[in-house]
Parts: sequence; structure tokens; C-alpha cells
Amino acid sequence: MLYGAIEGGGTKFVCAVGRSATEILESVVIPTSDPDATLGACVSFFASAERKLGPIGALGFGSFGPLDLRTGSSTYGHMQATPKPGWSHVNLLSPLRTRFDVTIAIDTDVAVAARAEWRLGEGRGLGSVGYVTVGTGIGADIAPRDRLTNRLMHPEMGHIGVRRDPRDTFMGVCPFHGDCLEGLASGPAIYQRWGRDLAELPPRHEAWSIVGTYLGQLAATMALILSVERVIFGGGVMANGLLLPHIRAATWRSLNRYLQPLNHEGSMEHYIAGPLLGSRAGIVGAFLLAESVYSTRRDTNDLQ
Amino acid sequence: MLYGAIEGGGTKFVCAVGRSATEILESVVIPTSDPDATLGACVSFFASAERKLGPIGALGFGSFGPLDLRTGSSTYGHMQATPKPGWSHVNLLSPLRTRFDVTIAIDTDVAVAARAEWRLGEGRGLGSVGYVTVGTGIGADIAPRDRLTNRLMHPEMGHIGVRRDPRDTFMGVCPFHGDCLEGLASGPAIYQRWGRDLAELPPRHEAWSIVGTYLGQLAATMALILSVERVIFGGGVMANGLLLPHIRAATWRSLNRYLQPLNHEGSMEHYIAGPLLGSRAGIVGAFLLAESVYSTRRDTNDLQ
Repeated sequence: MLYGAIEGGGTKFVCAVGRSATEILESVVIPTSDPDATLGACVSFFASAERKLGPIGALGFGSFGPLDLRTGSSTYGHMQATPKPGWSHVNLLSPLRTRFDVTIAIDTDVAVAARAEWRLGEGRGLGSVGYVTVGTGIGADIAPRDRLTNRLMHPEMGHIGVRRDPRDTFMGVCPFHGDCLEGLASGPAIYQRWGRDLAELPPRHEAWSIVGTYLGQLAATMALILSVERVIFGGGVMANGLLLPHIRAATWRSLNRYLQPLNHEGSMEHYIAGPLLGSRAGIVGAFLLAESVYSTRRDTNDLQ
Repeated sequence: MLYGAIEGGGTKFVCAVGRSATEILESVVIPTSDPDATLGACVSFFASAERKLGPIGALGFGSFGPLDLRTGSSTYGHMQATPKPGWSHVNLLSPLRTRFDVTIAIDTDVAVAARAEWRLGEGRGLGSVGYVTVGTGIGADIAPRDRLTNRLMHPEMGHIGVRRDPRDTFMGVCPFHGDCLEGLASGPAIYQRWGRDLAELPPRHEAWSIVGTYLGQLAATMALILSVERVIFGGGVMANGLLLPHIRAATWRSLNRYLQPLNHEGSMEHYIAGPLLGSRAGIVGAFLLAESVYSTRRDTNDLQ
């Protein structure tokens, strides 16, 4: 059985064909341009792969958002309003559906990465994990996740309000909220505030603990609201792992032993983790989505 | 069929027997004292009701927490560490189980109230609701809720961090976090800060908008993280309804049109609501829990 997988990001699309998430046969990276060209290149890749490898049984698509994922919605699988030029309200599924007569499952890039880390990464064996990606934006989701059919939309956790670190007077970069979490701790916020990427700042620079303080507040809030068993931080800003100790310290300070399962010294070492799959989480998750939808044989966003 | 229901609070326990949540035949209010006396009085009430009305088929128990609700835990249904004197680590189920050979389902008082408002109150017909109770403490939960078996514990949303209203310099009353949401917006925080209950302060007093600002931050965070379709605010501090407009305004400011389904004027009127069941939500929810567990015929905390 062959599956197709797409990880659609604001900078690049990754497409792959394989027998499973761990047995990829062909893949391609497509720079994100306008929707027609980008999705057209995805279609061409899968068409070419089918000629070479045989028919694809199902497609899994993890895309940047915001997406309409309400089952039964007339705009299911469409992009919603997005600052990404040209992409607002684009039907992400129709170019694929026109060419391929297979079930296509779509979810956010964050949701599929969360599922990948839960199933095959740092969340293996746990009942539930939160997954946070810190890059150009900040996204977070939970795995496993119940159906989205009974929700307003998919989570948008990157935009929660956070308490100011007293050392930090930066106004924030979020066009909607200014100094929400994404406005203060995303890659662009770091670059604009300190003139370079976090990885290029010395380890003793206050940027590390300031950014860690904000991300730790998200982890604490996810523990209090979602009660996930672990929170995994991935994405470009997390890449070298140096932020994790700062996030652990901030989560510990925020919770202050309040939650019984996290009230002992050392609990943060296990509670806050880096990703096992790294930058592969998105495409692996898209494969898992394809496999899941193939086994249930219906067009669904049910990730249970 | 007869069901028994218990709403266990820090101040009083309400016990009731009835044919359903809407057909209560007998009820009693028991002041909360030590666990033996309080739970003993509950047992006596149900024993007396059974002699009069016939056998009870199932018991639903909504209790103050924190509770151990992990299915399979050796301390399932026990109170966890709590500031309430004498109640830490008490087995809440054993006095009932010793006397009654029926299925007993337990969940938090907030969870059962959330379920009641979702099924029979202001959440009727919606896919999901958040329910917040603002009183001596602040608790919140979501309905319907997936199993707790894959979570750390039940939600403890009242303790999330909030951004300071610049007018407010009160240090907060939470013994763990000082100025978390509960530390700033619970009944005791209001009383300690302004010398009286909110309802006794004039409508133009800044207390209304300050407390509303904090509660609106919770509603916005629940929208971003849980994507619930409505947030219902109940509990003693909410009683006269005057806080709702302040909460709506603060939620609107916090989200700032970011979530597509909530980006139009007037959306807050529907998104933020008062409770329909009022103070009855807890006992009604305990009945729903008993009915649910009777119909599934097993000892469970699965609220689906």
C-alpha cells in the first residue's frame, strides 16, 4: 500500500510517497509561492510518483492555517483569512481531488506533528501530549485529539496572553495582539528585538530566559487547562535545545507545585521535552493521517 | 428507576434522590464538616430515602477537588491534597460503597455542572461548552469531555496566569500563585481587596471591570486552547449578571477579532453567557452522571 503525504508550510511544501511514515520512497520540497503553482507542483509530484511506484491509496495533508476543518462545512478544507498573500480562502483540497480519486485527510501542520510525536516520538506510550512549535509563528495542539466537529475551530494556542517579563519592554510583533505569546516569543519577535536569531545570541544573554519564561507560561497553561501528560517543544527556535532548561524553570515557577503530579523536584525534566522527530514530525504526521484515514476509509478529520 | 445524586462542596453537601435530573423526589442539605460526619450524613439520607422510595439504581457524585480520577488508580475517587482541613486523601467513595451495592460515578463539581449546562442549560444544542464557576475559588471545565484516563488529572483552569489590569495592585490571595486568576478574581480576592462582595459595590465601581478583565482573559484563553463554542459563567460572584458585559468586553479585547468565528461585532453576546440552571447545575449534573453510568452499567468517569 502506498500513501501520499503533504506538509504545507508558509515557506515550503514537502510532499512524499511511501509505504508508511518510516518507509518513504520519494519526496520533494516545493517553495511556497502562489496557491495554484504550489498545489499544482504537489499534484505533479504525486502523479509522477504514481507512474513510477503505482497507485496511492490515501493522502494526508498537514497545512499551515487557519483552516476550516468543520465536518459538513461547505468550505471544509479551505484556508481561512491569513496574512499569507494570495492564500486566504483557498480550497486546498480541490486541486488534489480533481486529479486523484482517493480519500484525502487534512489537518493543521501542528496537529499532524503533535500526532507524530505522540505516536512515534517523545510522546510514545503516554496518554496525551501537548506539542508546541516555535518558529515564524507559535502553534500548539494536543494528541490524541477529539473530533473537531464539536469545536469552534482548531486550537490557536500561540496567541494566548502572557505576563510580561519585567526585563522585557518590546512591544511585540503580532498584528492582532501585539504582545501575545507569538508576538513576544516567535522567531520574528526575537529577531526584531535583539537583531539576530536566538541561536546566534550567547547562552548567557537574557533573551534565553525571557523567551523561556513566555514559553513556560504556555506549558503551565496547557497543564492547567488540557492536563496533558507531557509538553513537547519543537520548531526552528527550539533547534539547539538550549531553550528547554529555561522553559522547564519557567513552567516550574508558574505552577509552583500546584498540580499534584508535577509537585516534585525533577518532574519538569520529564514534563517538558524536545522533539524526537525534529523537523520530520510534520511529514511523518501527514503519513499517519493518510494511514488513519485509509484504515477508516472515509474522509474525516477524526484523529482518534 | 431511582437515582441518587451528591453535590459535594466545601461549605455544604446537597444530596437528592429522584427519577431524573428534572424529577427530584427528596433532597437534603448537609453542612460540610469532617469527612466521616459529612459522608455519614449522606449515607443516612440515601438509606432513609431507599426505605421510603425503593432501591436506588446508581449514584452520581460531583465533588470539590482536587480528586484522583485516573481509572485504574489505587486511589481512584480519593481527595488529593487540599487546603480544606481534614479532607486531604479521604476516600470519598468507600462510605457509600460499604452501604450501597450500586455503581457510583464521581467527577468534579465543576465537570458535572458543565455537563448539566451543556445538556440542559445554556449549552443545549451546542457541540461543546466551557463552564466557569466563580465563587470561593474559580473552577472551569469543558463538556462534553473526553476520558480522563489519558490526562495528568482533571483541569485546574482557575489557576492560569493573567495579565494585570494596570489599575490593580492587589497582591492576590492564592496560596500557591498569589495573583493567578483565582488569586485576583475569586470571591475572597474581591472581598479582601474592596472590603465587600462584588454585588455590594456600586455598578460604576472599578471592581466590576477589573474582575471582568481577568475573567475575560480566561474566556479568551479557553477559546484559543479548547475552541469551545460557548463559555458559560456561573457561581456566586456571577449571581446578579452584572459582570457578564465586562467579561464580554474583555474577551473581545483579548481576542481582537483573531478567531474567525468570533471576529464580528455582537459575537460575544452569544459566546459568553450566564448559566440557565444557576445554582442547580451541580446537583442536576450529578443526576446526569448517575443516569449515564447506569446506562453504561459500569463504574466509570467517561462523560461522553
